[in-house]
Amino acid sequence: MLGIVVIGIGTGNPDHMTVEAIGALNAADLVLIPRKGAAKGDLADLRRAICERFLENPATRIVEFDMPVRDTSGGYRAGVEVWHAAISARYRHLLDGETGTAALLVWGDPSLYDSTLRILDLLAAGGLAFTRRVVPGITSLQVLAARHAIPLNHIGEPVAITTGRQLATGGATGTTTAVMLDGDCAFRGIDPEGVEIFWGAYLGMENEILISGPLADVGDAIVAARAEARAANGWIMDTYLLRCAGESASASASHSASVPGSPSRSQPAE
Amino acid sequence: MLGIVVIGIGTGNPDHMTVEAIGALNAADLVLIPRKGAAKGDLADLRRAICERFLENPATRIVEFDMPVRDTSGGYRAGVEVWHAAISARYRHLLDGETGTAALLVWGDPSLYDSTLRILDLLAAGGLAFTRRVVPGITSLQVLAARHAIPLNHIGEPVAITTGRQLATGGATGTTTAVMLDGDCAFRGIDPEGVEIFWGAYLGMENEILISGPLADVGDAIVAARAEARAANGWIMDTYLLRCAGESASASASHSASVPGSPSRSQPAE
Ligand SMILES: C[S@@+](CC[C@H](N)C(=O)[O-])C[C@H]1O[C@@H](n2cnc3c(N)ncnc32)[C@H](O)[C@@H]1O
Ligand SMILES: C[S@@+](CC[C@H](N)C(=O)[O-])C[C@H]1O[C@@H](n2cnc3c(N)ncnc32)[C@H](O)[C@@H]1O
Repeated sequence: MLGIVVIGIGTGNPDHMTVEAIGALNAADLVLIPRKGAAKGDLADLRRAICERFLENPATRIVEFDMPVRDTSGGYRAGVEVWHAAISARYRHLLDGETGTAALLVWGDPSLYDSTLRILDLLAAGGLAFTRRVVPGITSLQVLAARHAIPLNHIGEPVAITTGRQLATGGATGTTTAVMLDGDCAFRGIDPEGVEIFWGAYLGMENEILISGPLADVGDAIVAARAEARAANGWIMDTYLLRCAGESASASASHSASVPGSPSRSQPAE
Repeated sequence: MLGIVVIGIGTGNPDHMTVEAIGALNAADLVLIPRKGAAKGDLADLRRAICERFLENPATRIVEFDMPVRDTSGGYRAGVEVWHAAISARYRHLLDGETGTAALLVWGDPSLYDSTLRILDLLAAGGLAFTRRVVPGITSLQVLAARHAIPLNHIGEPVAITTGRQLATGGATGTTTAVMLDGDCAFRGIDPEGVEIFWGAYLGMENEILISGPLADVGDAIVAARAEARAANGWIMDTYLLRCAGESASASASHSASVPGSPSRSQPAE
């Protein structure tokens, strides 16, 4: 039976590949590589570079295909649904008659703001029989935190991961908010008082840019750097963490409410 | 000058190691491996197994040391602060006079509920001069999502990452909540109506356990499986995702409020 393996490849640096991902790539009979628009050329190139560097199985076929283009004229959600259905139809066509394992290489980690698993649901709902396996990959948020050498969370406190759109409509919640998919510097819309920002673009790549500091001080510099880099490269991918300095009052309260030395605490402490 | 490299090693499976992590390990002059309590023996063993399998540089020294023990008698926070200071003092002693690169191997990713970077801050505040570098690793949450073959987020919606303690005091927020550091099955305290749970223990390891389904149906089975596995192994590490079925009304509202085809949308869609 056909098997589909969804492999997280990290966010721009082939060194993000895990041993498991390299193994899964070499165990595949077929690797599907999407060609994207010219501006995103770098992304398809990364997948090719990863195959060139890590694929040692001469029996594995690499098949390049054109990704259906997204139509945004009917609103965001409608556009996305139609687009996902079109990608699923393309996969169905490409996998027709295959009985081995096909690999899909996903940017970052397949679990975070990526549609591949939902598209596989459509493929299954459409009647294609296959098994699926997911191999985790390094996300852009982890690279962001690593490059700034910071933890995502304050001790014992929550982290919210959200999109630029949600930040613009709902604001930041809690003490730490990580923002992805922000085409519009939504951090400009929040009260900068006491907020630090850790921003990164092209993380893991040669042209990586990092800026951090109090949002009130560095916000404008980020807007300017982003516009400049985007113009220079034709595209940009960036992500950032908003962190309230110090800790929330609620956190200390909930900490002191814990039961010291309770035998039920089998978890390693942070 | 002394360099400290903090390497994320993934969550129990040596195959989680990235090419970057393997490179950083082999570039180190010294690898510090903590011995932990007997019940956590498996954890120190993983670090040793990783060195045995991936370390090929004969010049790299491996130094095992005893981790200071945490005293929880004065409350959670006080105990953690004293403990972190004690670990920092231990590192200072171990790194005294070193001028090369020392590697610390961190479970999962160094950015998520891990104290190593905070301990390095204490080390620097105490007067030790060193450069630092962080290498991201696969987190347990990513392995959880991969094994259940699910995305963490609903399309375009936020994800909250939190602890069992926070869940117990503040409840689940939003449509998706990932819970770590939960020694007490805090999911029992939330209203199960419409909530699905995806639970995993010993993720990436031989004795991995996965349970998923409507919280109302599988909650008790998870409590039982967890207690049994913990008794059998002497320790347990588990994590889970709570997901409200379908999508929140607010999400659809914010989606339709977006500007279709706006030229400022330079971000790839999900
Ligand atoms: C469609 S999502 C995919 C996320 C991916 N699955 C991951 O795990 O990082 C794309 C968003 O991820 C972030 N992103 C991905 N790669 C990035 C990189 N190399 N540098 C900065 N941000 C990146 C940006 O916020 C971008 O808008
Ligand atoms: C101190 S935190 C460290 C998290 C780690 N830095 C990471 O990236 O996953 C420990 C918590 O992580 C989760 N965890 C770590 N490894 C796990 C595993 N192999 N299986 C299930 N949960 C795990 C559990 O919730 C545990 O209480």
